[in-house]
Amino acid sequence: MNDKKIEADSLKKYLNLTRYTNEQYINIHPIQRGGLLTPEAFKALVHYGDGYSICDYCLKGRIDEIENPPVVDFLKDIAKFLDIDHAMPTAAAREAKRIVMEVLAKKFPARKTVIIDSLAHYTTYLAIETNKLKVREVPNSGHSEYSVFLEKYKDTINTCIEEEGNPPLLAVLTHVDYKYGNFNDPKSVGEICKQYNIPFLLNAAYSAGILPIKSSKNLIDFISCSGHKSMSASGPIGILGFSDDYYDDIMKNSEIQGNITSKSFNNKICTFMGCPPVYGAPLVTLMASFPAVFKRTQKENVSEEAKKINYVIEKIKDIKGIKILGKLPKVHPLTNIKTDCFAEVAKNHPRRGFFLRDEFKERKIIGLAPGISKEMKINTYGLNWNQIKYFAKSFRNIAEKYNLL
Amino acid sequence: MNDKKIEADSLKKYLNLTRYTNEQYINIHPIQRGGLLTPEAFKALVHYGDGYSICDYCLKGRIDEIENPPVVDFLKDIAKFLDIDHAMPTAAAREAKRIVMEVLAKKFPARKTVIIDSLAHYTTYLAIETNKLKVREVPNSGHSEYSVFLEKYKDTINTCIEEEGNPPLLAVLTHVDYKYGNFNDPKSVGEICKQYNIPFLLNAAYSAGILPIKSSKNLIDFISCSGHKSMSASGPIGILGFSDDYYDDIMKNSEIQGNITSKSFNNKICTFMGCPPVYGAPLVTLMASFPAVFKRTQKENVSEEAKKINYVIEKIKDIKGIKILGKLPKVHPLTNIKTDCFAEVAKNHPRRGFFLRDEFKERKIIGLAPGISKEMKINTYGLNWNQIKYFAKSFRNIAEKYNLL
Repeated sequence: MNDKKIEADSLKKYLNLTRYTNEQYINIHPIQRGGLLTPEAFKALVHYGDGYSICDYCLKGRIDEIENPPVVDFLKDIAKFLDIDHAMPTAAAREAKRIVMEVLAKKFPARKTVIIDSLAHYTTYLAIETNKLKVREVPNSGHSEYSVFLEKYKDTINTCIEEEGNPPLLAVLTHVDYKYGNFNDPKSVGEICKQYNIPFLLNAAYSAGILPIKSSKNLIDFISCSGHKSMSASGPIGILGFSDDYYDDIMKNSEIQGNITSKSFNNKICTFMGCPPVYGAPLVTLMASFPAVFKRTQKENVSEEAKKINYVIEKIKDIKGIKILGKLPKVHPLTNIKTDCFAEVAKNHPRRGFFLRDEFKERKIIGLAPGISKEMKINTYGLNWNQIKYFAKSFRNIAEKYNLL
Repeated sequence: MNDKKIEADSLKKYLNLTRYTNEQYINIHPIQRGGLLTPEAFKALVHYGDGYSICDYCLKGRIDEIENPPVVDFLKDIAKFLDIDHAMPTAAAREAKRIVMEVLAKKFPARKTVIIDSLAHYTTYLAIETNKLKVREVPNSGHSEYSVFLEKYKDTINTCIEEEGNPPLLAVLTHVDYKYGNFNDPKSVGEICKQYNIPFLLNAAYSAGILPIKSSKNLIDFISCSGHKSMSASGPIGILGFSDDYYDDIMKNSEIQGNITSKSFNNKICTFMGCPPVYGAPLVTLMASFPAVFKRTQKENVSEEAKKINYVIEKIKDIKGIKILGKLPKVHPLTNIKTDCFAEVAKNHPRRGFFLRDEFKERKIIGLAPGISKEMKINTYGLNWNQIKYFAKSFRNIAEKYNLL
C-alpha cells in the first residue's frame, strides 16, 4: 500500500525518456530485430502518434471496416500474405492464441486439452492456463538440436483421446521457436490434425514477416502473428488469421442486451471486445511496413538472411567452449549459443556475468541479456553484410581477449 | 475467401500513410482530445517507436519490474495518482474490465450478475458478455439530463439477491460517460457496495487524466483507465488500479506446468498473460505525459477547462432547435448537443447529413462524426481560449448561414 501522495518534483524523471538510436549501435536483441521500424512506418508513427488517430473516418464503429486509412484492404492483403482466408488485428500474438482457445472452448465444452510442441512460448502455456484448459506437450530431441518430433502429434492426440475420452480442443505448433529459432514445417502436423478433425493453430509470432508462410493447402485453421516482433510495427499488435470454417465462431457479433435500456451492440464483435486495442500507431505502422515486409519475405531475401546468420556461426563455432544449439544450418536468424567459455570467464571477472554485455557494448553491439554469460540469444535479421562481418569479428576479438581461441 | 495472391503494385497505397497535423485544424473529436500527445510524449514516441523498445534492460522477464525506463516507479506513482493501492498496465480500459470480471468469476463462481449504470460504455457490456455473465442496469432520469439514479444501486443489488439467491459479482459505475459526458461521484455507490460487501469498479476511461480521482476512503476496489483516451498516451494502453484486498487475485502467478518438460512460469502473472501488450510506445508515452497529466488534473486547470465548455454552451444554446443534453453546468468537457435544426437542414441539402461536417471542416474544425447531423458529440478539452471562442463563433456562423438564429 502506498501513501498516495505525489510530489510534483519527483515526476521530473519522466520528462526526458530517450533511447540510443539504431545508428549508434548494432542491436542483436533476439526479439527486437524483426520489429525495427521501416522508414515508412516511422513516418506513419509520427503522423498517427495520437490516441485513436486511426478513427478519424470511422463510419461503422468497427476498426476492421475503416476505409481511410485503408484498413479493410490491409486485412484482406495480410490474409493473402498469410495464405489464410481472414485476418483480424489483436493486441498481440498472445491475445490471438487466448482468443482462439476461448472461442473453441465455448464451441466444444467437453474438450479440455491443448496439444503443443515442447518449445512453445510461455504465452501459449498461459493462454491454456487462463482458459482453464490442460496442456499436453509433444517431445523434442533434446540437446543439442531440440528438434520437435512432429510425427508425435499423432501419438499425443491418440493418448489424449484414450485417457480423456475426448479429442483435444486444439493443436498448436510453434513455427519458429523463441529459444533455438528452430523452424518447423507445419504441413505434416496439419495433415495429422485434418485426419483427426482437430483445429490446428500455427504460432507464427517469430516467423510471419521474416519467412514466407504457406498454409499448405488449407491445413491451417488459425495463425497467430506479431507485428512488433516480426513485421516492423511499432505495436504492440498481433494478427489472428483464420479459415472460413471458423469465421462464424471468431466473428461472433455481440448478443447482450440491457435489461432496462434494451441497448444492444450487434455490430460489435464480442470475441475482440469490439475494436481490438490497436487503434492508431500499432495498426498504422504495421500497414506502412507491409510493402517492405512483403518484399523481404520473398525467396531471395530470405535466403540472403539465412546466409548471414550461417556466416556468423561459421566464424565463431571453433571458439573453445562454444556450442550452437538448435537445428543447423539456420533457416531463421534467431540463434542460441551455449557459451560455457564465457561462463567460465565470468566466475573470476569483477563484473561477473555482466562482463559479456559490457564487452559487446564497448564494441557498439547491444541487445545481449544483462548478467547472463552461459548462453547468448542473438538475432542478425536485417543487419547488412558489413555489420554481420563486424559482429563476427567482435565476437572473435572478445574470445581472443580471454584466451579462448 | 480471398484468392490469396498479392500484386506488389497494389501495396503502394500503404507507403504514404499521413494525417493532418494538430496545427492545421482544431480537433473537437469526442474521444481524441484527451489523447493528444504532450511534447514530452512525442519525443518519447520517436525514441521508443520500435517494437519491444522498453525491454532493453529487462532483468526479470516482467514489464512491471523494469527499472530503466522507470516503469516500477511509474506504476507506484500512477497508483497514487488514482488514489488506489496498486496499478498494472493493460492493453486498454476494456481489457481492465474484462480481466476484473474474469478474476472475480473465478473467485465467486456462484455469482453471475454485474450491475452497471445505464450509461455504461459498450465495452462494459461486452466484458460481461465475454465472461458469460448477466447484466442488470441502474436506470437514469432520461431526457434531457440522463442523470444516473446512483441511490438505485441499492435496489438493484437487493433485487439481484432476491431473484438469484446470490449477490452480484461486481458493481460498475461509469465515472464520466461516453454519451453525455455526465460526471458521477463514486462515493455513494461505493458506500452501498461496502455495505453489501460487493466489489466495486469505477470506469474512469474518460475521467482519469482529465479530472482528479478521489477514491473516497477506500470505497473503490478497482479502477479502469485509458491512456490513449484521457492521459495523452499514444497507446492503446489501459491502467487497472486495484486495492490491497484483491492483490493476490489480480497478481496471480502462473501455475501451469509442462507434462513432459516440467517447464513452469511462476514469475509470470497469469491474469495479464505475462507482460501485458503495452511494450514500447504505449507505456513510454504514458509515462512521458504523466507529469503534464498530473498538473492538468489539479483543481485550477480542471475548473478552467469546465469554464471553456460552459462558455461554448452559453454561446450556442439560443440557436433555434439546439438542445444541450446531459447535466449542466458541465464538469467534463465531453458534450452531446441535440441538433434538430441541423437535421432539418440535412433533409434538403445535397450533401445530406454530411453537410455539417463539411461546414465545420471548411472552418478548419474537424472531429465531427461523418454523416450525422441530428446530434453532435464534441470535446473542447485542452483548446486554448482563442480556439474556444473561434469554435463557438463558427458554430453560430453555420447556424446563421442556415437561418437558425
